[in-house]
Amino acid sequence: MSFRIEKDTMGEVKVPTDKFWGAQTQRSTENFRIGGDRFPREMIRALGILKKCAAQTNHQLGLLDAKKTEFIVKAADEVIEGKLDAHFPLVVWQTGSGTQTNMNANEVIANRAMDMQGIKLPSKEIHPNDDVNKGQSSNDTFPTAMHIAVGEQVYHRLIPMMEKLQKSLEKKQNEFKDIVKIGRTHLMDATPLTLGQEFSGYSMQMKHAIQRVKNALPHLHELALGGTAVGTGLNTHPKFAVDAAKAIATETKIPFVTAENKFEALAAHDALIEVSGALNSAAVSLMKIANDIRLLGSGPRCGIGELHLPENEPGSSIMPGKVNPTQSEAMTMVCAQVMGNHVAASIGGATGHFELNVFKPLIVFNVLNSIRLIADACESFTDHCVEGIEANRKQIQKHLEHSLMLVTALNPRLGYDNSAKIAKTAHKNGTTLREEAINLGLLSGEEFDKIVRPESMV
Amino acid sequence: MSFRIEKDTMGEVKVPTDKFWGAQTQRSTENFRIGGDRFPREMIRALGILKKCAAQTNHQLGLLDAKKTEFIVKAADEVIEGKLDAHFPLVVWQTGSGTQTNMNANEVIANRAMDMQGIKLPSKEIHPNDDVNKGQSSNDTFPTAMHIAVGEQVYHRLIPMMEKLQKSLEKKQNEFKDIVKIGRTHLMDATPLTLGQEFSGYSMQMKHAIQRVKNALPHLHELALGGTAVGTGLNTHPKFAVDAAKAIATETKIPFVTAENKFEALAAHDALIEVSGALNSAAVSLMKIANDIRLLGSGPRCGIGELHLPENEPGSSIMPGKVNPTQSEAMTMVCAQVMGNHVAASIGGATGHFELNVFKPLIVFNVLNSIRLIADACESFTDHCVEGIEANRKQIQKHLEHSLMLVTALNPRLGYDNSAKIAKTAHKNGTTLREEAINLGLLSGEEFDKIVRPESMV
Amino acid sequence: MSFRIEKDTMGEVKVPTDKFWGAQTQRSTENFRIGGDRFPREMIRALGILKKCAAQTNHQLGLLDAKKTEFIVKAADEVIEGKLDAHFPLVVWQTGSGTQTNMNANEVIANRAMDMQGIKLPSKEIHPNDDVNKGQSSNDTFPTAMHIAVGEQVYHRLIPMMEKLQKSLEKKQNEFKDIVKIGRTHLMDATPLTLGQEFSGYSMQMKHAIQRVKNALPHLHELALGGTAVGTGLNTHPKFAVDAAKAIATETKIPFVTAENKFEALAAHDALIEVSGALNSAAVSLMKIANDIRLLGSGPRCGIGELHLPENEPGSSIMPGKVNPTQSEAMTMVCAQVMGNHVAASIGGATGHFELNVFKPLIVFNVLNSIRLIADACESFTDHCVEGIEANRKQIQKHLEHSLMLVTALNPRLGYDNSAKIAKTAHKNGTTLREEAINLGLLSGEEFDKIVRPESMV
Amino acid sequence: MSFRIEKDTMGEVKVPTDKFWGAQTQRSTENFRIGGDRFPREMIRALGILKKCAAQTNHQLGLLDAKKTEFIVKAADEVIEGKLDAHFPLVVWQTGSGTQTNMNANEVIANRAMDMQGIKLPSKEIHPNDDVNKGQSSNDTFPTAMHIAVGEQVYHRLIPMMEKLQKSLEKKQNEFKDIVKIGRTHLMDATPLTLGQEFSGYSMQMKHAIQRVKNALPHLHELALGGTAVGTGLNTHPKFAVDAAKAIATETKIPFVTAENKFEALAAHDALIEVSGALNSAAVSLMKIANDIRLLGSGPRCGIGELHLPENEPGSSIMPGKVNPTQSEAMTMVCAQVMGNHVAASIGGATGHFELNVFKPLIVFNVLNSIRLIADACESFTDHCVEGIEANRKQIQKHLEHSLMLVTALNPRLGYDNSAKIAKTAHKNGTTLREEAINLGLLSGEEFDKIVRPESMV
Repeated sequence: MSFRIEKDTMGEVKVPTDKFWGAQTQRSTENFRIGGDRFPREMIRALGILKKCAAQTNHQLGLLDAKKTEFIVKAADEVIEGKLDAHFPLVVWQTGSGTQTNMNANEVIANRAMDMQGIKLPSKEIHPNDDVNKGQSSNDTFPTAMHIAVGEQVYHRLIPMMEKLQKSLEKKQNEFKDIVKIGRTHLMDATPLTLGQEFSGYSMQMKHAIQRVKNALPHLHELALGGTAVGTGLNTHPKFAVDAAKAIATETKIPFVTAENKFEALAAHDALIEVSGALNSAAVSLMKIANDIRLLGSGPRCGIGELHLPENEPGSSIMPGKVNPTQSEAMTMVCAQVMGNHVAASIGGATGHFELNVFKPLIVFNVLNSIRLIADACESFTDHCVEGIEANRKQIQKHLEHSLMLVTALNPRLGYDNSAKIAKTAHKNGTTLREEAINLGLLSGEEFDKIVRPESMV
Repeated sequence: MSFRIEKDTMGEVKVPTDKFWGAQTQRSTENFRIGGDRFPREMIRALGILKKCAAQTNHQLGLLDAKKTEFIVKAADEVIEGKLDAHFPLVVWQTGSGTQTNMNANEVIANRAMDMQGIKLPSKEIHPNDDVNKGQSSNDTFPTAMHIAVGEQVYHRLIPMMEKLQKSLEKKQNEFKDIVKIGRTHLMDATPLTLGQEFSGYSMQMKHAIQRVKNALPHLHELALGGTAVGTGLNTHPKFAVDAAKAIATETKIPFVTAENKFEALAAHDALIEVSGALNSAAVSLMKIANDIRLLGSGPRCGIGELHLPENEPGSSIMPGKVNPTQSEAMTMVCAQVMGNHVAASIGGATGHFELNVFKPLIVFNVLNSIRLIADACESFTDHCVEGIEANRKQIQKHLEHSLMLVTALNPRLGYDNSAKIAKTAHKNGTTLREEAINLGLLSGEEFDKIVRPESMV
Repeated sequence: MSFRIEKDTMGEVKVPTDKFWGAQTQRSTENFRIGGDRFPREMIRALGILKKCAAQTNHQLGLLDAKKTEFIVKAADEVIEGKLDAHFPLVVWQTGSGTQTNMNANEVIANRAMDMQGIKLPSKEIHPNDDVNKGQSSNDTFPTAMHIAVGEQVYHRLIPMMEKLQKSLEKKQNEFKDIVKIGRTHLMDATPLTLGQEFSGYSMQMKHAIQRVKNALPHLHELALGGTAVGTGLNTHPKFAVDAAKAIATETKIPFVTAENKFEALAAHDALIEVSGALNSAAVSLMKIANDIRLLGSGPRCGIGELHLPENEPGSSIMPGKVNPTQSEAMTMVCAQVMGNHVAASIGGATGHFELNVFKPLIVFNVLNSIRLIADACESFTDHCVEGIEANRKQIQKHLEHSLMLVTALNPRLGYDNSAKIAKTAHKNGTTLREEAINLGLLSGEEFDKIVRPESMV
Repeated sequence: MSFRIEKDTMGEVKVPTDKFWGAQTQRSTENFRIGGDRFPREMIRALGILKKCAAQTNHQLGLLDAKKTEFIVKAADEVIEGKLDAHFPLVVWQTGSGTQTNMNANEVIANRAMDMQGIKLPSKEIHPNDDVNKGQSSNDTFPTAMHIAVGEQVYHRLIPMMEKLQKSLEKKQNEFKDIVKIGRTHLMDATPLTLGQEFSGYSMQMKHAIQRVKNALPHLHELALGGTAVGTGLNTHPKFAVDAAKAIATETKIPFVTAENKFEALAAHDALIEVSGALNSAAVSLMKIANDIRLLGSGPRCGIGELHLPENEPGSSIMPGKVNPTQSEAMTMVCAQVMGNHVAASIGGATGHFELNVFKPLIVFNVLNSIRLIADACESFTDHCVEGIEANRKQIQKHLEHSLMLVTALNPRLGYDNSAKIAKTAHKNGTTLREEAINLGLLSGEEFDKIVRPESMV
């Protein structure tokens, strides 16, 4: 392995020749051998976007020359596209401000920008701090990148995938709108409803869940950039904050704006805790939906068995018909994780000090992880489960017929006492209401069939 | 102790003569001796509102006669006003649908309505189920009462008290706007800002926290009433849902409406989990603010000591000047509790089955508890802490003068290397920048004073 | 209302004449109007025990005269017995050290001790600080009382009630040991086991849960008393720590000892977080058990219906046989709360500073609350649910006979392919294995019955 | 890319030629595109150990021939050593029983065992189910692998790294045993103690934290293997459970035993929730320690500044002396994550159904992740922070001298009133006790120095 010597204010450091990172990144790899979680791709991309837009803005403000700008932008574009991911080795469990990952971006962009021009490394001709990090501080860039990364994922993955599931549930709602079935409260037999109505509840849960995510967007759109070290904007151009936010909005096509109050934007990450809260709520909804669906599909002989779930993989080599509700299982595990991630992010959000919250990597890691899990799980659950759900009409009908609570329909004709007598006798004897109504001489079978019609009870 | 005999479908039960509750309430007191948490007053009141509005609506729809309506409304008014609280003995840890507390309301209102007319108990002349619970089910009344109770507390206590704190912080922001002080990132000395800017961050956190609560209101305004047992509205008048919601809106002056989808409204409580999420976010914000304030007030001699916090109670009989930041302590404890309550509520929200979530009492108990804690703590923290905070200008000035990072201002004049030399020497010798600038012959005291002006760095 | 004037180092305060509390308690009632949670009875009692034992120890060390000791002990005994509960008005949300509740105990005991001797109040003849709090600090008394209170509840309520449930489950395990039933994995039909085996899993979960609580006891036995303000034991007799712990052990009959390291005992409450962790684990176990039992009892016609749960209250006035699994519902709500309380306690435990953790009231409040909830719920669940559970042998047998996975038993005789053919055909046709084995000409009914014997598969 | 055709009971699947996995693994990669978390290496290794020991045990019981055994063991050894990690592509978010990862191990071992003998794939000469999974089910193998993986990490990483930190803290305790410093309670100045005493509290926290992990081991040692599908041990040799557990104990040198109750071992993972609880407690302890250390090191000029923390990387290019407490930051982020992971694992643990908990991958993923984070962070924190901590004796002495609470020492000589007068005057004037004692004519400087000696107060 060959090395070059990079320097920072603490001295010289050996860096692998084939890597564009510099001294500070190298130190971090040595000082933070904790866990295996590299910074997510989405954050690397967001730093690329930020550095590109910052360079362009500084150039337009007359602070960065055209040539440097050109090559910084080119290198940043490679970061955005993922071409330089191998040069971002740092883990989440590092400095709580994310300084080292910001420096990683500065170093890689500077070195790659020089490399593109054939400048031999090490060199500071394009300087990671003075040029790439110009007018910036880790304290404002890192939270800005957090918002960009989360924003992109919310817009491009989370909402579309939640909508995909919502629409799939709505499709089933329509498909099942005429299937009358027994309702269940407290897990016990209750009055009937349609299977479509049951699915309409799920669909509505998802609609609200999507709205909740959208409610969190206005605060998420606010960017810290321009606050620099403590929020005062020291060392940056007065127009930088507004202009850079505009450039980022243009680049991402997301309506990012500069934060109204930079002190809040550095010292707290309430905007992301709000997103995390929306994800927690979504997990709560999805846990209910996925759990209901596996219970409705349970059996096939000794469970509820009202739904046929798609058979995606062999359940068992012994028993045909054993389809395990594996998509529900993956979904409910995802939900539990998201609920746990929310606690981790909340603790981090609550534990900042003074001008800076230093749980930044933790917070963005958990929020991005939860977004990915919910989005991917919604997609998988839609494609491999909901889309293929079929009603087991025979079983649904059997339950409906056997249920004792249809007796309610007899109240107007026979009065409560006679109706109750029918139901209690049927329960005791394990017979049907119809049988006992006839046995007790209260109704003929014909009369019973005319009155007891579940489809008019929904 | 004297008793009367009340009956339900399971038979006779002895009930204390001086209590208006009936058989089902009595059974619950015997079957659920769990914990000491009685149902909160706010829920009892909400059930009173609901029963009153339901009676009026049923009357207007021609389903309940004038006399019964009159006395049910009168009895319900007493429930609303809290006159009958002693007749609501049930604890939170009961049936997960809250059925027993709904029946408690039905029984107390029926019995009190008869008692007002001089009818001797026991009697079913006004029937708890047929009259008071007319066209209703626990499954739709209880979640409706949950939304009413939480809605009232959000509007009448939570938002006003959060706004009170926000305004108090904003007042301090203005009061302290000219006090330049050292900033701190990573708990370490950083570039300066004003104390007003620091407080502006807190004020902005509260503004967003209030907005987050408001974002949760539209879903909270939706009432389940009219869904009855499973959401289909079986056994209730077609106009009941819309009209009763209107009556409740009128009674409470809160824009409640009937829920768009009753299946979702019974089977899930995502609207309340959303409120809980907003409370969790508020707790995260308040933990940061309260913690910062006690750290800034720490000392008086051996801490940071930049703020004087009001002295509310003796800290110690030995040491004058020992004021403990007790309001911050109460606030941070409250925040930890609210974060825990959020987990409890979320688990309950995620664990419903089919047509009914049966963690209703748990969910509303935690949400109401969190609202009360946050509201009370915001009020107490404002009155007994924030309002009385004073800046320790002497200490703030001392820190500002001693800080080494003001050296930044010398960069343009002396260059980075000479500036660094000054700072490093001062750090090593424990001296000031000014002293070392003079000692090193780089600047006169006069020149130094002209350049190094923290007030221009904020 | 009449008042007397009490004093502390901050001046005079009006206190209701009929209350024994003093100035500091009064101030706290005015400064902390937060929430409705009074300090739990168990903590008041524990402070009584502590003050009694401290007085006796100080007397034996020659530091407190006989007469003062006699009356302090008498007053403390009244605190222990609960006679003075009305004199402890303070809420949990106060100073994070619990100082005000410690002072409440000091003031009430001093005033009651004087009152018993006919000394007119206000008086400092017996001094709350100098006599009742002699050689103590809130910083060591309060955590000591936390351990006493939790210790008593663990020994006298938690473990006995968990054991009661465990024994009840074990009784059912034996009662059901010969009932062969279908197993379920992934909620889907699987190979058989006995109902007794199923209950043996629950019983074993409880055995481990009890052991986990016991594992937490050694650290809980360690008392902070003797550490005084910061752990050094300043102002207390060198023998006080050991002797007072012995006195407390004698008084409570619990093997309390003085803490090995007083700095840890004041600054952290890891011993209680450990107890909270054991309670969280117990909640996890109980959630599974209570949930299984309600699922097994679901129906009666359209669910699994393998268990009859005791009918404790009317489920519905319409449908006979609708028994709601209300004890499971109360239990699972309790479990969710305990899991949330654990998060609250953990955040409090993690957030101490330097020589003192100031989330003490929060931590002990949550731990005591969780203990009470688990203990009460175990008792209620045993008495009102588990004891009365009966197997629905008919339904169990029906499921067993209909299950397709019994086909496994045919493998040795017919080979996998023929067995699979039988099972697949039965699944497709909705018939039984026996029918299709005969239809396919592979076995006679007699042969089938000889081979397919679920009781030999368990 | 070239493929071969593998088969399972659902038909044919294309698998990349260069991979040893089979049809079921391939299906899982297509059905579960959720998140990016591959199964951790530790679980792959544990499955290798299990499959090796199972093969050896089956051979000894006469159920697997010598040649198959030889090559299965060889292939399993490669899995153990990590040589086949590229052949384990599955993510955590799959079937909740871990079936697909168990099958992944079966398929890879079978195919590699054949490959070693030159048998051309696809082939079932060594069968993934009949041979590698012989007498096993995913339902007992996967929880067994969970215990092996967690057990190995607890023994080989977690406890050693926690002990490393504990010893380092103890070393500092001794190193600092004579440094008298001001104590702080409520963040406010209090009576003195030694810096060694302060560190003794941290060291003791770690000792208890380690003991708590050890307390969880007995249940963790119990292995589910031999329970097969539902806990009855159907289709496995009666001696298999005990013998295989022995083989695993021998292979791992960890005292694993067969679980007393297999039903509990499949249906619940309380043993792992217990480990998770111990990790949560450790996180609570470590959060306190890491937070204290960064607060004590805060400054250098405007904070507490009593400790010098090692300078590991440049804090800022502007300000010399700005060392950020980055190791504390990484540690506290890790602690927040572990507390969140605990919630996720607990929810998973609570949500099993009947004979099988299907949150297995979630639970083990979180527990292994928390172990790795705590172990790595303890190591990093020791090496890069604790070991290099130095006391800033000058600052410590300055705080000690300036503190007003040393006045306590004057009580015996001057009485409380005169002492208080000195302290109050000093507080008001911002002077020292010594100055005011002299000014007030109460003591000479010499007398003062003789009496006020902090070193005798610790």
